Amino acid sequence: MKIYDTKTAPTPRRVRIFLAEKGIEMEYVQVDLAKGENMSPEMRTKNPIGKIPVLELDDGTCIGESDAICLYFEALHPQNPLMGTTPLEKATIAMWQRQIELCLFNQIGMCFQHTSGYFKDRMTPIAEFGKVSGISASKYLNVLEKRLVDNEFMAGTSFSIADITAFCAIDFGKVVDIRIGDSQVNLTRWYDKMNERPSARA
Amino acid sequence: MKIYDTKTAPTPRRVRIFLAEKGIEMEYVQVDLAKGENMSPEMRTKNPIGKIPVLELDDGTCIGESDAICLYFEALHPQNPLMGTTPLEKATIAMWQRQIELCLFNQIGMCFQHTSGYFKDRMTPIAEFGKVSGISASKYLNVLEKRLVDNEFMAGTSFSIADITAFCAIDFGKVVDIRIGDSQVNLTRWYDKMNERPSARA
Repeated sequence: MKIYDTKTAPTPRRVRIFLAEKGIEMEYVQVDLAKGENMSPEMRTKNPIGKIPVLELDDGTCIGESDAICLYFEALHPQNPLMGTTPLEKATIAMWQRQIELCLFNQIGMCFQHTSGYFKDRMTPIAEFGKVSGISASKYLNVLEKRLVDNEFMAGTSFSIADITAFCAIDFGKVVDIRIGDSQVNLTRWYDKMNERPSARA
Repeated sequence: MKIYDTKTAPTPRRVRIFLAEKGIEMEYVQVDLAKGENMSPEMRTKNPIGKIPVLELDDGTCIGESDAICLYFEALHPQNPLMGTTPLEKATIAMWQRQIELCLFNQIGMCFQHTSGYFKDRMTPIAEFGKVSGISASKYLNVLEKRLVDNEFMAGTSFSIADITAFCAIDFGKVVDIRIGDSQVNLTRWYDKMNERPSARA
């Protein structure tokens, strides 16, 4: 079993942190996104949309999408749950995980892709859209700041996959100068605790 | 228990079809997106990002995001599974569900929002981005056509939430003239079967 990974990209980092939190050892194979190695015919057989990460099982079965890979390991190793146990916990975590992904992680990603031109060989960057996405991401930090006034973690009282997604998004946000503001004391407190976890180095 | 719903919008339709497939009765409260009723202070207390659908439990607890609402009912009523039972089934369905959402559903949504100006009172439409999103969506139909050559359903041999997401995306695609092509015989066969299911009328 192995995971096709890119050490510098924010999405595969989510899986690395998730597995570190679960205490699951993994073989990682580095794929160079800048060189487009993820778009090769071989990688396209593993994941039709040519994205990283991809989990490859020993029988050759492949699973793409960081959320799907995390779900696989959560189902296989339910101890130390990061996606909830009761129906309400599962749904609450899924809600925050999704909103943080749509409103923060993806907005920062769009801001980077559309303003930097990093992937301009394989997409059409539209700078104005990148700028609007960055503004949306910054605004959403206010939603999270408010959320953390009465909650220790994004989905409530327990550390979950939603915290991992937010942490990876905020760290990646630095490349487009999207940062937690000085007045966002709850986000700062939460971020510092995330950053102290050993998994943050995964 | 009730769901805040908008009968004409593609996202809440995913939940209605999911619940119809599970045989779960539900009270639906209509919210007018065009009038911005979803953005009212009251609705914002139910869902901080003001999106529909929202599930409200009898104790007032609210869950946003269609995926999270479906997960709640899947966990509560595991019979007739639509999100898989084994770790591999769960992960495979989650992978296709996610890719169909990112590469089709959301691209069609962006195409509609950025080219129609429907929500221009609450977002910045960028026509060029809308056009690019529509092209991405059309291209992804080729991925699904290929997928269905050897698979009856999107995630393999069983009907799942991934089929619901694809079906709602393709139906909504008509408003921006994104349609299954005449040469896409597998997608056509799959679509016709989806459309024959009683849940398609939910």
